[in-house]
Amino acid sequence: MPLVKKDDSKTIAFYLQNGVEVLDFAGPMEVFTYAGYKVFTVSATQEPIKSQGVLQVVPDYSIENAPKADILAFFGGNSGAASQNEKVIKWVQGQKDVQYHFSVCTGAFVLAEAGVLDGKTATTFHNALADLEANYLKVDVRKNVRFVDNGNVITTAGISAGIDGALHLVAKLQGLNAAKRTAYYMEYDNWNLGNGLILSDDNPYNQTEPASFYTAFEGTYEHPRSSQVQLIYNRKEGNLVVENKGLQSPVLHIVDDVFSDAGNEPVFFHRNNSGDVIGYSLTKEGTLYKKL
Amino acid sequence: MPLVKKDDSKTIAFYLQNGVEVLDFAGPMEVFTYAGYKVFTVSATQEPIKSQGVLQVVPDYSIENAPKADILAFFGGNSGAASQNEKVIKWVQGQKDVQYHFSVCTGAFVLAEAGVLDGKTATTFHNALADLEANYLKVDVRKNVRFVDNGNVITTAGISAGIDGALHLVAKLQGLNAAKRTAYYMEYDNWNLGNGLILSDDNPYNQTEPASFYTAFEGTYEHPRSSQVQLIYNRKEGNLVVENKGLQSPVLHIVDDVFSDAGNEPVFFHRNNSGDVIGYSLTKEGTLYKKL
Repeated sequence: MPLVKKDDSKTIAFYLQNGVEVLDFAGPMEVFTYAGYKVFTVSATQEPIKSQGVLQVVPDYSIENAPKADILAFFGGNSGAASQNEKVIKWVQGQKDVQYHFSVCTGAFVLAEAGVLDGKTATTFHNALADLEANYLKVDVRKNVRFVDNGNVITTAGISAGIDGALHLVAKLQGLNAAKRTAYYMEYDNWNLGNGLILSDDNPYNQTEPASFYTAFEGTYEHPRSSQVQLIYNRKEGNLVVENKGLQSPVLHIVDDVFSDAGNEPVFFHRNNSGDVIGYSLTKEGTLYKKL
Repeated sequence: MPLVKKDDSKTIAFYLQNGVEVLDFAGPMEVFTYAGYKVFTVSATQEPIKSQGVLQVVPDYSIENAPKADILAFFGGNSGAASQNEKVIKWVQGQKDVQYHFSVCTGAFVLAEAGVLDGKTATTFHNALADLEANYLKVDVRKNVRFVDNGNVITTAGISAGIDGALHLVAKLQGLNAAKRTAYYMEYDNWNLGNGLILSDDNPYNQTEPASFYTAFEGTYEHPRSSQVQLIYNRKEGNLVVENKGLQSPVLHIVDDVFSDAGNEPVFFHRNNSGDVIGYSLTKEGTLYKKL
């Protein structure tokens, strides 16, 4: 049983116009789906669209019949087909219970056209920064940032930056551990945590425990299915990792001496009377696997 | 006119089984499409498939009617639907003129089942490494590598590693500059160039010019549409970058004193009799923009 239930209650509408850039939406789709959200696709009509001139996609809904979503997401690649379509903009403006607006690349132009970015700070694809700035005077456009978080409106730079923006939103909604678990699953080794402009108070990257808290757990331990494993503090990631048969995976801090593994299963550490870590168990009162 | 014509002659068949992981194929699709290849999708039948349980995709072809391809690509996510489908494996084995086999994540199981990995070194999704090793004794399975290149058979680690594997194949086929241009376009800032196991002689990451060659071009220059620009040597990337109005983009070495910009347009540098760089022109004999 995973220690913390995934928050699978949020729904995310991915608006896909004909010509949408494939990685723009697929990166966030990978992230949000693994993190447990309900993703569906919407387009102006339910006619098949072609992404990147290559991939034939059938949208789940048209703007006429799409259900409500907690999060609305827009993507680049021929984004004028959305931002210059009055019906689409009216649909965006008509979605009143949206909790978060999210855009990747020139998807920002859809949010800008709908007025969602008025008075906000935003970014977009590197080749479109000047254009966004020139056309939407109420938007404070920033360059050289991978994403901008205004609290409930997140815009990202081009194409692959959508992955970082999506991981950031997962970190905001479910905590940094959920985002780390997702990045580990998708082998996004080069994730540069929190590498964006965060203008919101809910910054999920503030490390609460000092390095000394984590290094106290470092060492060699017994393991139920392996002769022994190593627990190591990864300074860059700010968390423990377990090395088992040459493969590393994260061991993330939950509370007190309770951690969770990459599969979100709990790990309970135990200390002796002097406060030294002596081992761990997989249930609170279960078998003790000793620190060697 | 771009200086070097993109090699758009190669065709790549993306085999997509029902349940295919969305980023597994979308990362490479983004890379190969931008780099100028002709990508098409194939599945067991032409019935729509669902990627990641979310995205409805209509394959361009079935294995019955798919045209020949220079490159065959396979992806993870329910990959047993392909590797355990005898008709699919026979189709893979029947493609005799394939120049490159490429897999992402558990797509390696399709190549393994078809015998393509026999006697080869390969990798796969972190959770599937032991399984690949146990089931395919003729395959030398490696962990902790982002991709393995045997020359004509490239396998990558999980999900997002497909982006790196695809950039690597572009670098092999069109040169490192083409891969760098693609990574710049898609804002894949964290690309760790050549971070894989390359068992082939055609290693595209061997830097031919020393740093001193590049630093000779550093400085402030006149610019046709800007008051001035800075040319800087980026040691990590091993190439020049131009900084124009706060935005950096690559300036890549072609031959002698000829470079190309991010849009693949030529830049001709000029020297005085002492060999010092004095400026550049955009055509061989065109206006000289001076080094200041």
